[in-house]
Amino acid sequence: MKRITVWTEYHNDAKESEKYATQIYGKGGYGELIKAYPEGMGFALADIFKGDKDCTVTVTSVYEKNDGLSEELLSNTDVLIYWAHLMHDKVQDETVERIVRHVNTGMGVILLHSAHHSKLFKRLCGTTCDLTWREAGEYERIWTAAPYHPIAAGVENGFVIPHEEMYGEPFDIPEPETTVFLGWFEGGEVFRSGVTYTRGYGKVFYFQPGHETFPVYKQKEIIRILRNAVNWALPAAHRTETGCPNRKEFLKR
Amino acid sequence: MKRITVWTEYHNDAKESEKYATQIYGKGGYGELIKAYPEGMGFALADIFKGDKDCTVTVTSVYEKNDGLSEELLSNTDVLIYWAHLMHDKVQDETVERIVRHVNTGMGVILLHSAHHSKLFKRLCGTTCDLTWREAGEYERIWTAAPYHPIAAGVENGFVIPHEEMYGEPFDIPEPETTVFLGWFEGGEVFRSGVTYTRGYGKVFYFQPGHETFPVYKQKEIIRILRNAVNWALPAAHRTETGCPNRKEFLKR
Amino acid sequence: MKRITVWTEYHNDAKESEKYATQIYGKGGYGELIKAYPEGMGFALADIFKGDKDCTVTVTSVYEKNDGLSEELLSNTDVLIYWAHLMHDKVQDETVERIVRHVNTGMGVILLHSAHHSKLFKRLCGTTCDLTWREAGEYERIWTAAPYHPIAAGVENGFVIPHEEMYGEPFDIPEPETTVFLGWFEGGEVFRSGVTYTRGYGKVFYFQPGHETFPVYKQKEIIRILRNAVNWALPAAHRTETGCPNRKEFLKR
Amino acid sequence: MKRITVWTEYHNDAKESEKYATQIYGKGGYGELIKAYPEGMGFALADIFKGDKDCTVTVTSVYEKNDGLSEELLSNTDVLIYWAHLMHDKVQDETVERIVRHVNTGMGVILLHSAHHSKLFKRLCGTTCDLTWREAGEYERIWTAAPYHPIAAGVENGFVIPHEEMYGEPFDIPEPETTVFLGWFEGGEVFRSGVTYTRGYGKVFYFQPGHETFPVYKQKEIIRILRNAVNWALPAAHRTETGCPNRKEFLKR
Repeated sequence: MKRITVWTEYHNDAKESEKYATQIYGKGGYGELIKAYPEGMGFALADIFKGDKDCTVTVTSVYEKNDGLSEELLSNTDVLIYWAHLMHDKVQDETVERIVRHVNTGMGVILLHSAHHSKLFKRLCGTTCDLTWREAGEYERIWTAAPYHPIAAGVENGFVIPHEEMYGEPFDIPEPETTVFLGWFEGGEVFRSGVTYTRGYGKVFYFQPGHETFPVYKQKEIIRILRNAVNWALPAAHRTETGCPNRKEFLKR
Repeated sequence: MKRITVWTEYHNDAKESEKYATQIYGKGGYGELIKAYPEGMGFALADIFKGDKDCTVTVTSVYEKNDGLSEELLSNTDVLIYWAHLMHDKVQDETVERIVRHVNTGMGVILLHSAHHSKLFKRLCGTTCDLTWREAGEYERIWTAAPYHPIAAGVENGFVIPHEEMYGEPFDIPEPETTVFLGWFEGGEVFRSGVTYTRGYGKVFYFQPGHETFPVYKQKEIIRILRNAVNWALPAAHRTETGCPNRKEFLKR
Repeated sequence: MKRITVWTEYHNDAKESEKYATQIYGKGGYGELIKAYPEGMGFALADIFKGDKDCTVTVTSVYEKNDGLSEELLSNTDVLIYWAHLMHDKVQDETVERIVRHVNTGMGVILLHSAHHSKLFKRLCGTTCDLTWREAGEYERIWTAAPYHPIAAGVENGFVIPHEEMYGEPFDIPEPETTVFLGWFEGGEVFRSGVTYTRGYGKVFYFQPGHETFPVYKQKEIIRILRNAVNWALPAAHRTETGCPNRKEFLKR
Repeated sequence: MKRITVWTEYHNDAKESEKYATQIYGKGGYGELIKAYPEGMGFALADIFKGDKDCTVTVTSVYEKNDGLSEELLSNTDVLIYWAHLMHDKVQDETVERIVRHVNTGMGVILLHSAHHSKLFKRLCGTTCDLTWREAGEYERIWTAAPYHPIAAGVENGFVIPHEEMYGEPFDIPEPETTVFLGWFEGGEVFRSGVTYTRGYGKVFYFQPGHETFPVYKQKEIIRILRNAVNWALPAAHRTETGCPNRKEFLKR
């Protein structure tokens, strides 16, 4: 059984979510979100795995206790899907450390879109994760640079996302383990749109598409990629003891 | 003193070169080359270092003895600039092995444009180095993905090459040491346009721009990149003994 | 069904093999091989998969037609296990190119011990693959540097190989994708004993243990590692078209 | 001028330092430190650059204001040398973030020995940086795995450190950019003793030798390595604007 946890910064009720965002950020909040994902972003992402008999999906958010990611929930998560945009600072440092600890011992994590600037991604990368951006609803074309990678299986090369926020280079990340996807934007930019890392036992995938005002996560190629990514990021069956043991004696042959 | 060797598949006389190409490939040969580089491709590349008091440049070609890259010349080369297009098969296997041996002991190598399909690059990569392509004279925009890399120093991010052959992903290369540049093409494709590798003591830089029918190597940003690349690829001052020594005795404290 | 091909430079009859080796290299040939692997090295390696209902194993050698690796056999191989020592030069260049082509389109390859100096490994690496060595029958301790890697699953950290040829650093290989194992030798040296690469669609694992005069491939930890490595190196289910297509038209949205 | 800052957790007065350590950790504190480095660890490290006309060295410690690493000092540091052992938790999180910010914009950092477990190194790696260890004063042999790397220039391969704390694999770090050195320990372990990373514009070198009870930093090979490392880690001459700019308009050709 694959135990997936979908975490977003949205209240499970999109209107509630909008209310919070408006309180904090003023009029406009999440903008067009309610039109694109009336069911709430978390549930939209969960829907990708609807009907999978080998999956259980938990939807949670920053509005829950422990920022929605308790020790107990993380202990029962194989892959965490993490969507965030405006409320990176609302996530407490201790929550970030707790997630990192679980990644290091094997939990996979998929960071989506504006989660590039989450404390979590910066903590896993050790860089600023800065980039350039533009909100113009332009189209993006996604190219596979590593067709051999399991996350790219069955994905048509060069497929189009009709409307997307532009994210452009330079993207301040460590040189990826694998650059799986590259994005081409109508307005003239390129981006390393899908990149992987290993951190301890845990696999990390950052994926750029998914601005909240466009129904990107309902597009079939994106769905395929996210399903591939979950399978790729599942923890290895084997995990050995971790820690920092003092081995007092010389080894004997 | 930086000892640069520029190798191309062009006869030093462009008209002679065209004649050979026509013999082998039929009418059309190198096409518009004579207009873009009437001085010959090798001399055009050499011109980039004209006036540098700390450089010596040797221009050679596949029409010379030993395919233009004798043991003696390679022994006196710090960085080899390698441009090739149609005549990859004319280069003998033993020449390729000779070059690789010099790369492994410290000679830098810069492979340009259609040299992606040279025996040399495939030999250094271990992959097919396949890509997709289109000759439409479209414009390309070059983005810096690794602004910290010395090859990117002083290069304006997002500069335009007015006319270029399109090279598109997937580009079948090993995951680069550093992906320095990414290319955006008018017609819709992206490409890892500047990538680095280390092979033994030798540094390797592949750089995509430079189709023979456009005067790309006379553009200031390209000139800056190639000058940076030569400096980056210079052999380290230190080279220790290589080989496969039999160390017969146990080491003593 | 996993289709494994075991290739060695041994005639399937160890005594025949010894005879050839003696002809070529003079008295001594493969030395103690017959005592350690009286069944022949190829069959000893094949035995690792004996009884596996989901495996078929073909044993072949350089004494067969096409150096034992015909187009047809390679087309029907998922993972190639490659053991070589003295006869690297007997393998024809065209055979090496044929293997590389199959690796690039997805065939996994596991190179063992002195195959570090095979044309094949040097061709995949682009380096000399030089190292230092000593034949003293000393013991080696194998450490897991990447416990999260599937090849390390279930392998006791720090296990001992009672007698082994020493291979020491510097090992002239490209920086590995993953350094899975490190070897500690009684006589004072260390070695990157298990390293991985990706080349096109193909996975490559080099593994140092396995000198022919010691029955290393009959040791349970080594068997576990080789079985893990075969599973890791299996071709991905998906392979897209390869080649270098000319995409003549601009892409349309 | 190279502006080096040496940071340690030692009070500049070794006896004061011992007093603090004893207060916190009980009798024993830094143990034999006073014998090995009576001048204080920070000054011992600074001595490596004594007499260099192109260097200025600042010695600071966790006992200073802002944990000894103020915004002003970091702004005037090219390379930070960081030695820590017992007091990782005494360094405030905001200090760590301040250091990381400076690394990301170009400051080099060299982390020594038990700094593997500093908040700073874990923050740059995204892993636990756990390892195994033993305090037995055994000898270590340092091997160069990447002889081409500038940090290894002029360093004798296989040199011996007469007494050292053992650090053993698995070392839970991301796959290094380059594994420059490997350590062999008398008691049977191996370790990736010198590894590099790039984080933003900044270069990172972790180097294992240097337990406080042995005068390792007074050994000529270690001094050579640290001097090489400082030169390697110097900031690039070029740094472009960082940040996350909104590029509102489509690019024009």
